[in-house]
Amino acid sequence: MKSFALASREHQTQDTIIEINTSRKKVYIGEGYCTIIAGPCAVEGKEDYLAIARILETSGAHVLRGGVFKPRTSPYSFKGLGRAGINIISEARKITGLPVITEIMDLRDLDLLYDNVDILQIGSRNMQNYTLLEEMGKIDKPVMLKRGLSATIEEWLLAAEYILSGGNRQVILCERGIRTFEPYTRNTVDIGAVALLKHLSHLPVIVDPSHATGRWKMVSPIARAAIAAGSDGIMVEVHQNPDKALSDGKQSLTPENFSKMLEQILQLAALDGKTIS
Amino acid sequence: MKSFALASREHQTQDTIIEINTSRKKVYIGEGYCTIIAGPCAVEGKEDYLAIARILETSGAHVLRGGVFKPRTSPYSFKGLGRAGINIISEARKITGLPVITEIMDLRDLDLLYDNVDILQIGSRNMQNYTLLEEMGKIDKPVMLKRGLSATIEEWLLAAEYILSGGNRQVILCERGIRTFEPYTRNTVDIGAVALLKHLSHLPVIVDPSHATGRWKMVSPIARAAIAAGSDGIMVEVHQNPDKALSDGKQSLTPENFSKMLEQILQLAALDGKTIS
Amino acid sequence: MKSFALASREHQTQDTIIEINTSRKKVYIGEGYCTIIAGPCAVEGKEDYLAIARILETSGAHVLRGGVFKPRTSPYSFKGLGRAGINIISEARKITGLPVITEIMDLRDLDLLYDNVDILQIGSRNMQNYTLLEEMGKIDKPVMLKRGLSATIEEWLLAAEYILSGGNRQVILCERGIRTFEPYTRNTVDIGAVALLKHLSHLPVIVDPSHATGRWKMVSPIARAAIAAGSDGIMVEVHQNPDKALSDGKQSLTPENFSKMLEQILQLAALDGKTIS
Amino acid sequence: MKSFALASREHQTQDTIIEINTSRKKVYIGEGYCTIIAGPCAVEGKEDYLAIARILETSGAHVLRGGVFKPRTSPYSFKGLGRAGINIISEARKITGLPVITEIMDLRDLDLLYDNVDILQIGSRNMQNYTLLEEMGKIDKPVMLKRGLSATIEEWLLAAEYILSGGNRQVILCERGIRTFEPYTRNTVDIGAVALLKHLSHLPVIVDPSHATGRWKMVSPIARAAIAAGSDGIMVEVHQNPDKALSDGKQSLTPENFSKMLEQILQLAALDGKTIS
Repeated sequence: MKSFALASREHQTQDTIIEINTSRKKVYIGEGYCTIIAGPCAVEGKEDYLAIARILETSGAHVLRGGVFKPRTSPYSFKGLGRAGINIISEARKITGLPVITEIMDLRDLDLLYDNVDILQIGSRNMQNYTLLEEMGKIDKPVMLKRGLSATIEEWLLAAEYILSGGNRQVILCERGIRTFEPYTRNTVDIGAVALLKHLSHLPVIVDPSHATGRWKMVSPIARAAIAAGSDGIMVEVHQNPDKALSDGKQSLTPENFSKMLEQILQLAALDGKTIS
Repeated sequence: MKSFALASREHQTQDTIIEINTSRKKVYIGEGYCTIIAGPCAVEGKEDYLAIARILETSGAHVLRGGVFKPRTSPYSFKGLGRAGINIISEARKITGLPVITEIMDLRDLDLLYDNVDILQIGSRNMQNYTLLEEMGKIDKPVMLKRGLSATIEEWLLAAEYILSGGNRQVILCERGIRTFEPYTRNTVDIGAVALLKHLSHLPVIVDPSHATGRWKMVSPIARAAIAAGSDGIMVEVHQNPDKALSDGKQSLTPENFSKMLEQILQLAALDGKTIS
Repeated sequence: MKSFALASREHQTQDTIIEINTSRKKVYIGEGYCTIIAGPCAVEGKEDYLAIARILETSGAHVLRGGVFKPRTSPYSFKGLGRAGINIISEARKITGLPVITEIMDLRDLDLLYDNVDILQIGSRNMQNYTLLEEMGKIDKPVMLKRGLSATIEEWLLAAEYILSGGNRQVILCERGIRTFEPYTRNTVDIGAVALLKHLSHLPVIVDPSHATGRWKMVSPIARAAIAAGSDGIMVEVHQNPDKALSDGKQSLTPENFSKMLEQILQLAALDGKTIS
Repeated sequence: MKSFALASREHQTQDTIIEINTSRKKVYIGEGYCTIIAGPCAVEGKEDYLAIARILETSGAHVLRGGVFKPRTSPYSFKGLGRAGINIISEARKITGLPVITEIMDLRDLDLLYDNVDILQIGSRNMQNYTLLEEMGKIDKPVMLKRGLSATIEEWLLAAEYILSGGNRQVILCERGIRTFEPYTRNTVDIGAVALLKHLSHLPVIVDPSHATGRWKMVSPIARAAIAAGSDGIMVEVHQNPDKALSDGKQSLTPENFSKMLEQILQLAALDGKTIS
């Protein structure tokens, strides 16, 4: 028995498939599906967010992303719209019918987020925030657990185990790059982790090429590599005007580049016989 | 101006000296002092903890450590005695007159900890738990901020900046080893960080050679190196019976080895003209 | 101008395509082609090597690999057959008509290797052995430069620059994994490096998923990811009987698994409109 | 038995002490001694080198350093004076009576270096250049083996084993910092490695705080830390005019700062009962 018992394939041979329902759409995440999560890094304002949400829905994205509580390295950086932002993503959800994902940092926001979003995200910096993980184990909503900046595969699966052992079996793993000595890219994307996780665990695996590379020109090749290695989907940052983004503009795709990338991803997914979400 | 404004030496040329008072002792942490923080990794039971506390007080320790809320990589590991442990360290504080330090993981424990301990510790895994850091900024009690496992010096000082900018200027930095490729030791202790922090910042710097190395035979040489490089003190794990410790036994000193180490440390501190706490 | 002038795309916009001719085959390496290099880690004996060479030729490999001078971490490990091994790979070359690649460690072997092999390999440990690189710059034969274990992209391109500036423009870059904190895999394959190199440089890029992962089950997904990210080919270890291999058995494919992987790779290459070598 | 048999303390309990004789001086390197190796990074010209050599001899250095064959990341950087530089260090050796150390990169220089220097240095980039190591095993002259940029302790001791098993037992290990994610310092000095090596092996251990930190202000604290942790000496860069140095000026001490540091080092060495070389 592995140290990460419930997360292991020995414990559960069948792949975990997560089903998300909004009033108008049904989205699946897990083996055999290819799920596209997209949106700007942060929700910056109502008009812009609703506009990009409509574009992404039309382009074929399956889940909308948008940060409202932003963990920032410096206390002086833009930290997101906070609770006001929840109304915006909630409205985008109604308009597009797409499920939404956003990050939770503070348990005092849990009720509000629970009522308004479809997937809760635990960010890299909080991957070992066990207080947060334990509460995630008590809810009946999918949780996307991003890999810590320098978390080993085992530590990551043990963080998932905190949620699983609390009773919540809807955990999605998201590889977003690890910290290495290489200065050219923001992080080093660990595509090997995808292959390894699909082997060790039954949980869905998603790759975030935007944070992993920090350079929009690398997003598309890394997204393709992720799918080719067995990832169950990707999460990417898309912004109407990357140069003016309040955070992470350098790694954001324009809607046009997003569409081009999506076309290639779908070809690869078809080659593997995957259902498009 | 550096990104970490309040933590920088440009902002404050004078070293921050933290003064801690219990009814019977006065302890200083900062430039010009050498402060010894010691105790078992976790509080495992009342009798044992009070016994080791008395030994450490007699041996010359200045602050008692003892974890009651333990962040553990696996949800199945011993996580500390929790709130029951607070009573024990509180009693050790009364008996020895020494100030105590313990880790806070959950804000719901803040009131209890605030009333019973002298220094609150933010552990490595929570170095970028900004919700926790922001609350630490609102209290009037010293906070020891351990370096994240793969945090850069700048990220670490920016985490301190979260606390400082909230209004709490009593921040102590604790180097506890970083994650590298080397498998022989648990972590790689970054003694260069000590020299760099004393240059960049006015905040006190402490080194934890127990977690940094994971091997008790290395604790004494690394403690000496830390002091020689300019550290304002050390924090070490001491256990009556390391082989039976519920956590981190391999890196714990016996009381005898602690005393031997202390003698060497005091010689080095004297060479630098430091006051023993 | 970049520090790696001759290797940069600014210096040469057109991709470098390397052409290798044996009496019976013509192989291309570079943008637009997909080249498969395969063989056992080390040449262990004549019969076995000729047998696997024939299998690989039939299966569709384009270049044969086989180490005869093996850099080994311990002086007590099997270091290859040395000069005797050259005769074996030379015979395999004649029998199959395939070009061969092997590593050069010692300049005293240069004449012999020059006369008998088609591509000279500089191993990871020698990526910054400038004495060796300078001599590679003086010959008119393709050189495959493996990335150092913890070389940055810039250091790697500057190592290539040593060869290019000496006059030899036939340099192939080979990503083979970097050293990180992750213990599950032998190394962490840096697929992002592939995308970055194709952007920064005109030189051909090959990925070695065998050394990068150290686990044969991960070879095929990483090979697919490499091609999807833009790699111009892959180099893999194949052994008739991996359990009995004198070195690197755990990461070697059986001929059957090699054929399965090749089929998938060719589908991916076709999707990108690549010519199969 | 450890994988590094001859280098292990199990194999040889007694510390290896290396004795170096010039016509006028006798220098020891190993447990119980504190040896100071100093000089500019590169020999840049005769007048300057002889001048700094005289200053260092007067200040109390025991061994002169000075690179004539310089491994440089870029082929376009200053690579040292080459063979012409040998005459200069040879003259400095005669004038001061101090033994000299310089790096060997190319075996074709071995005879010349053998005749003119007292210690041959294998640089970080060549730590696993086994061709070079094997030849070092055949000579009867001390070899200083610098740790590779991301070499584990075991790999480093196995590199030493290459020399030892060839018959040369005069190997000195030199810690010079490892590669991590931290951008503030050139490398991260691994002081824990010193403590570990003294425990695992009988070989002398030296620390190079100049390369380890890349910042002259950190050289003195790290040198002190090294000695406090058990290092048998230090190797530092000293330059009359660091701002005009052709390489590594930022990490070079002025002669004045060298003297100040030396005073502190000698106090620490005295505390440990060490003989000054």
